[in-house]
Amino acid sequence: MIFQVKILGNNSAVPAHDRNQTSQLVQLDSQFILIDCGEATQIQLSRFDIRIGRIKTILISHLHGDHYFGLIGLISTMHLFQRTAPLQIFSPPGLEEIIRLQLNVSSTELSFPLRFSQLFHEGMNQILDENDFTISAFPLRHGISCYGFLIKEKPKPWRIRKDCLPDDILIQEIVKLKNGRDVLDDDGNVKYACSEFTLSPKPSRSFAYCSDTAFDTSILSYIQGVDLLYHEATFTSDMQDRAESTFHSTAAQAATIASMAGVGKLLLGHYSTRYKELGPLLEEARGVFAESYLSIEGETIAIKE
Amino acid sequence: MIFQVKILGNNSAVPAHDRNQTSQLVQLDSQFILIDCGEATQIQLSRFDIRIGRIKTILISHLHGDHYFGLIGLISTMHLFQRTAPLQIFSPPGLEEIIRLQLNVSSTELSFPLRFSQLFHEGMNQILDENDFTISAFPLRHGISCYGFLIKEKPKPWRIRKDCLPDDILIQEIVKLKNGRDVLDDDGNVKYACSEFTLSPKPSRSFAYCSDTAFDTSILSYIQGVDLLYHEATFTSDMQDRAESTFHSTAAQAATIASMAGVGKLLLGHYSTRYKELGPLLEEARGVFAESYLSIEGETIAIKE
Repeated sequence: MIFQVKILGNNSAVPAHDRNQTSQLVQLDSQFILIDCGEATQIQLSRFDIRIGRIKTILISHLHGDHYFGLIGLISTMHLFQRTAPLQIFSPPGLEEIIRLQLNVSSTELSFPLRFSQLFHEGMNQILDENDFTISAFPLRHGISCYGFLIKEKPKPWRIRKDCLPDDILIQEIVKLKNGRDVLDDDGNVKYACSEFTLSPKPSRSFAYCSDTAFDTSILSYIQGVDLLYHEATFTSDMQDRAESTFHSTAAQAATIASMAGVGKLLLGHYSTRYKELGPLLEEARGVFAESYLSIEGETIAIKE
Repeated sequence: MIFQVKILGNNSAVPAHDRNQTSQLVQLDSQFILIDCGEATQIQLSRFDIRIGRIKTILISHLHGDHYFGLIGLISTMHLFQRTAPLQIFSPPGLEEIIRLQLNVSSTELSFPLRFSQLFHEGMNQILDENDFTISAFPLRHGISCYGFLIKEKPKPWRIRKDCLPDDILIQEIVKLKNGRDVLDDDGNVKYACSEFTLSPKPSRSFAYCSDTAFDTSILSYIQGVDLLYHEATFTSDMQDRAESTFHSTAAQAATIASMAGVGKLLLGHYSTRYKELGPLLEEARGVFAESYLSIEGETIAIKE
């Protein structure tokens, strides 16, 4: 299954240095999930040839404008393109009123159902259960209500070793093996041992998104061991006081979280406009956690099996 | 005085073909007036090196999203840049509630005063009176409440002919001549005739903005003889029925209005996304009114004295 993250916007607060406000597109095979939607996200989607009709789910971390000002425009364009499929939006409370007010003022009756789900829970909460993956939300420390997201593949089937499969094995027997169970004969004895005819399942991959947030070790249990962690890195360490006072993180802090959580790779983003060049942020993070990378608009980060 | 119009966005409805939603910046010397503010207007302003702090007045023609979705982002960025000067916004009713709601949800107390004036009048109404120019608004025919704008230089002083001015003329006498009055002596006789020492004032230039609107000759009296008319031209004539049903105009209709109003130049814009190439729109307009031009993003149209 394809599992990848495309960076649409990587700047914080305002668009600057040809960088846009926060937005990412997560693809799981044919399913597209948009995470945050800063101004001009629809322009970025078009620029990278992504058909907006494929987006079924939008996750908005919090209601600072640089994370949602592009949403009303995206919804309007979906309407003008005569979308009919429902669109599900998760966010802290307040967003539905903002969107509905703007639709009402122009007497727009959308061509598709718009479904809002409000996030206001404590701790980790599963918010979506699809065939192949789940999405959970967990609180971040950011002054206003703000959530991180964990997208996780469901456990996969055991892999059948076709090379040693008996010719007369039945379909339902293969299904049992795939589910990790032995096939028993009528007397209850093992006919085909799962351990003999299968390889263990491929690991279930996972992606966690943490933005915006101050340095906060209480999120570690939610993101432990994820393959890819996006963690905001608004500042370099010389600005750590400012990071703390504005509920943001430094690149070193993001890397510390990545290291403590034992993640596969760390993706930095949400860069302050003061950094025209991003090298210092990457350098700082790599000093703490070698597998640190910059999120760059237009780049796609595949999470490999 | 500089009097010019910079095109920031020229597409209708959605961003497409590297064209943005409607926005224009009018400069009158050091005064900057933004007309309409589609999504990503702040990005366009930055792209063209325009400092947003210079904008004192924003005119929003109507509350279809492609004319105002960029406003909240622009205001937020002004706030983050710690603007202190007041910002005056004119629009039909409803915009203030939309903006305030979005500021409230993030508990944002702006660093500058935001002043809204609602447009809900009939006929032509002067809405701003500056030292050198006035702005008036007039209704357009567009399904929802929508206004056009007329920006007009105030009458200018008579031009003193320095070559024939007496050496002993007094300052206050020159002021009288500039105001078009004769200077009289103590006995009430003409001492300096205005006609002898001055040339007539330069004409007062004017710019009218008409978007969005169906073909509507009732606006002719408002825009009669303007130097530059921006009139929307969403469609070509083969789409005239669609133009009428959606309260838009064809390029030929825009040119007909320009011709009937005896304007200097016509600027077309608000192009439908169906036109990747704009040549047919220009060709059609020029068939009716020779002084027709395309509005192109980044281009500046000077209104010459």
